[in-house]
Amino acid sequence: MSTLVTDVDSSRMLKALRLAQKGLGTTSPNPPVGALIYAGDKLIGQGYHEKAGEDHAERRAVQDAINHGNGYLLKGATLYVTLEPCSSYGKTPPCTCVILQSGLARVVYGMQDPDERHRGRAKALLEAKGVQVCTGVQEEACSVFLRPWVYSLQTGLPWVTAKVGCTLDSRLVRLNERWISCKEALRFMHELRLQSDAILVGGTTVRTDDPALTIRTPISQVPACKQQPWRVVLTRDRSLLPANARLFTDSYAERTLVYERVEEFQAVLSELRDRYGVVRLMLECGGNLLRQFLEHGLVREWVQDIAPIICGGNASMIPGEDYLPNELHLSEVTIQQAGIDFILRGLVKS
Amino acid sequence: MSTLVTDVDSSRMLKALRLAQKGLGTTSPNPPVGALIYAGDKLIGQGYHEKAGEDHAERRAVQDAINHGNGYLLKGATLYVTLEPCSSYGKTPPCTCVILQSGLARVVYGMQDPDERHRGRAKALLEAKGVQVCTGVQEEACSVFLRPWVYSLQTGLPWVTAKVGCTLDSRLVRLNERWISCKEALRFMHELRLQSDAILVGGTTVRTDDPALTIRTPISQVPACKQQPWRVVLTRDRSLLPANARLFTDSYAERTLVYERVEEFQAVLSELRDRYGVVRLMLECGGNLLRQFLEHGLVREWVQDIAPIICGGNASMIPGEDYLPNELHLSEVTIQQAGIDFILRGLVKS
Repeated sequence: MSTLVTDVDSSRMLKALRLAQKGLGTTSPNPPVGALIYAGDKLIGQGYHEKAGEDHAERRAVQDAINHGNGYLLKGATLYVTLEPCSSYGKTPPCTCVILQSGLARVVYGMQDPDERHRGRAKALLEAKGVQVCTGVQEEACSVFLRPWVYSLQTGLPWVTAKVGCTLDSRLVRLNERWISCKEALRFMHELRLQSDAILVGGTTVRTDDPALTIRTPISQVPACKQQPWRVVLTRDRSLLPANARLFTDSYAERTLVYERVEEFQAVLSELRDRYGVVRLMLECGGNLLRQFLEHGLVREWVQDIAPIICGGNASMIPGEDYLPNELHLSEVTIQQAGIDFILRGLVKS
Repeated sequence: MSTLVTDVDSSRMLKALRLAQKGLGTTSPNPPVGALIYAGDKLIGQGYHEKAGEDHAERRAVQDAINHGNGYLLKGATLYVTLEPCSSYGKTPPCTCVILQSGLARVVYGMQDPDERHRGRAKALLEAKGVQVCTGVQEEACSVFLRPWVYSLQTGLPWVTAKVGCTLDSRLVRLNERWISCKEALRFMHELRLQSDAILVGGTTVRTDDPALTIRTPISQVPACKQQPWRVVLTRDRSLLPANARLFTDSYAERTLVYERVEEFQAVLSELRDRYGVVRLMLECGGNLLRQFLEHGLVREWVQDIAPIICGGNASMIPGEDYLPNELHLSEVTIQQAGIDFILRGLVKS
């Protein structure tokens, strides 16, 4: 059975990946996945996974074909999907069933399911039924995109992105000015929140800034199924949090979680994943808590907005005079301009 | 008399400006200036000012034309020069004389001499003799290039560029590692030294780092007439400087200056300009002295190499818990990659 991969396959997979990106921030604990169906050169159906418990990308693409009167073209068609189709009953029936029922002749997928219980199973199952299967098409792009989800699956912890807005001298607070970041940088940070399942701060931030921690991008950019992220407060003593803080009084108050177990970061993160399905978590805390997260080795990604200001003061991004026990080094670093600021992003090398 | 400026004039002026850049770092206290002579469409001579006391760009361009057997074409030709020609006797006779003697018919210059004693004088003088004069061609580009020199002329102080190499958390020192900057960033910093007349550090830097503060770019890139920059040490007590420090013992020891007047930054800078012709000074000191320079408002340009490392520790770029009395804001900020580092540059807004 030929598994020849063509440039056409590659470019269709990238298109499926762009579709998958629409699910970013709404599918957790499931991965965002995109799927396309082609009958010859004709795109007959497309879909992406939107929310856990709802249809997977493959089923939505098949349904989309049917809805557009293309159902009769499914037999013999090719499915492109960014992740190996599921093969077991979860909240919905397995995608392999849908594929076989539809009479699809060929399935091309980007990356294997990393879960040992599923890895390669769909391939074997489909091939046994005479479906041609091509794997590893745009694998690098698909796996970079799903890196946080894979990490979370394998460690049982959310993928933590530390977000910092600071001056050139790494100060988090200016004298007599509420904001450090320019408005373009703030907008960018709200777009990052859109991709997050939870935002974590410390008690000090709640007391001093009284943040809302909500997504405030233009409503047109927010998927209808997107809930506000969980707003997680880590504090020594919950009784010291002001009862009238926005997190407890605004219309998303039920999305606020308070943890007092400040010595057990890993346990808190683990619970956030298991109980609340948090795969991607943004750390938006002050310097002291950030330092502790770094010392615990729990930060995977770094996003730093740098304002072209030098101000001094006592609010260091990494406070204290001691060195970190282990230096952090970033890889895959990129930098982009946002208004007058620069936003630097990178992965924490492990 | 027509002063029509054409696109041809503009592009030739940019070419003269590129020539001027060759003099950057060797002409102080004079400005770097470039000149071209065209007879019709033919470039017949070119030159740039290389060193104070030697020929100006205009004279070198005329001489270049003669050397290439183009002397007979000078009459009626056009001179392009980035700065208004000088009109008074200095160490060399005035360029206006050379222009008139050569029979040049037209002079196009980029910016006026900002010195009130000379401003517009060459124009009046040449026009009175029937030479056509066009001014302000690529004026913006020429004046941006000469900004440090103009500043120095108008204030009597060197243009101070603060140079910092730090981590993402603005630390200047790592634990157990000598360098913060990657080798590509270090190379870039040596290229900046090439443009500087002096480098200033504090006594602490001499004691802890024992720096050479010399230009160590490949010799092919260093103009033959470039001397090592003045190496200036600002210290409370010169007797506390180690006598065997490189600055006092290497082959450029005569280029080391020590000042004990640490309360009188401005006076020291003023003396460096008046006595040693320092127009462009690089500050390569540690955090404490840097902070003082900022507090005195003496820094005009900022160059920060940022390594993708977070390390903590007690060597802050801007030490102390107090805010700076006046925040610094940068304008015209650019950022460029150098190896794995990023180099951010900007002007200090006044």
